Amino acid sequence: MLIDKSVSQFLDATASNDPVPGGGSIAASSGATAAALVEMVANLTIGKKKYEDVNDEMKEISKKANDLRQQLLKYIDIDSEAFNRVMNAYKLPKDTEEQKIVRKMTIQNAMKYAASVPLEVAKKSYDIMELSMRVVESGNRNAVTDGAVSAMMARTAVLSAIYNVKINLSSIKDNIYVEKVDSEVSWLEMNATNKEKEILGKIEL
Amino acid sequence: MLIDKSVSQFLDATASNDPVPGGGSIAASSGATAAALVEMVANLTIGKKKYEDVNDEMKEISKKANDLRQQLLKYIDIDSEAFNRVMNAYKLPKDTEEQKIVRKMTIQNAMKYAASVPLEVAKKSYDIMELSMRVVESGNRNAVTDGAVSAMMARTAVLSAIYNVKINLSSIKDNIYVEKVDSEVSWLEMNATNKEKEILGKIEL
Repeated sequence: MLIDKSVSQFLDATASNDPVPGGGSIAASSGATAAALVEMVANLTIGKKKYEDVNDEMKEISKKANDLRQQLLKYIDIDSEAFNRVMNAYKLPKDTEEQKIVRKMTIQNAMKYAASVPLEVAKKSYDIMELSMRVVESGNRNAVTDGAVSAMMARTAVLSAIYNVKINLSSIKDNIYVEKVDSEVSWLEMNATNKEKEILGKIEL
Repeated sequence: MLIDKSVSQFLDATASNDPVPGGGSIAASSGATAAALVEMVANLTIGKKKYEDVNDEMKEISKKANDLRQQLLKYIDIDSEAFNRVMNAYKLPKDTEEQKIVRKMTIQNAMKYAASVPLEVAKKSYDIMELSMRVVESGNRNAVTDGAVSAMMARTAVLSAIYNVKINLSSIKDNIYVEKVDSEVSWLEMNATNKEKEILGKIEL
């Protein structure tokens, strides 16, 4: 599994001329990193007298962020698998009419799966931005910029994942599916961009 | 060393209530990730007939990006060490006048070092953006969005590192040093933001 590789080996695998892990897995790892930073700020706030008013909320934020992190870590590998599934579908035989139909359907299903994976990554990474906002507003002042970094990592995760949704969407023939996903993607794109601006605007240095 | 930890363990360490690794180390890892993605796009371009015009340039880009990645990987650990150096300086005894002076000077030096480390991370990450631009413009079309993701990771690295420069700068009494670094930081901040916009503007999906 990619997440069991060392940081340094994971980047070696990314840098190679193998297309996976690529932007999709990096989107997931960026989201997981954002979640870890939210947890850190929340954990540096919990149990401190000065912040006792938000103690319970910070415990909840830390738990939620941890949950999102574990999910996003899985998506680092899932995204690479989804890419390989599309590649394998293209390799199916196309000698007979029946084979052509099976191949076409398998490619379409693999494409939908490969679009749905980064869409989930984008949604979960956007959820982290809501938590980044709360730790920046109410978390330990000494770690406020770490909350801002989490917002930037999460925004990068959302927008990077969206690229990978769009790439797959452009080959999907099911128009109803495409329109539905397209509107979700536009919403996420706009809101992630605005939310990051809003969060960074709260940092005074 | 942090970079020998698995991806998953590195994020566990980030999430903990230990202030390091924090935003500073994450800035360096984000920059290293950006470099790895540039290398991937360049490596997916090298040796392809369709891109033979840029073959030599892509080889050079891959080499430069690899070099920056190795340097940035080291900064993941260096940043955490710099933070600890400041913390240790604060723990020095301050019972006598002499001790007070020594402590003050040691803190100031540690602060300068802790500002210089993320400043290097910001500069190197900005250098990656120049390479992201080139792979997006002239690299393998199938990996163009990976080049865009590298630009976003690099921009996040620059801006995150800058937060850590500014935090340390606010406690440094040497005004000439502060002004010099401040103007470098302003330049990097503006240019990283603009460069990212320019690169993302080149992606059509």
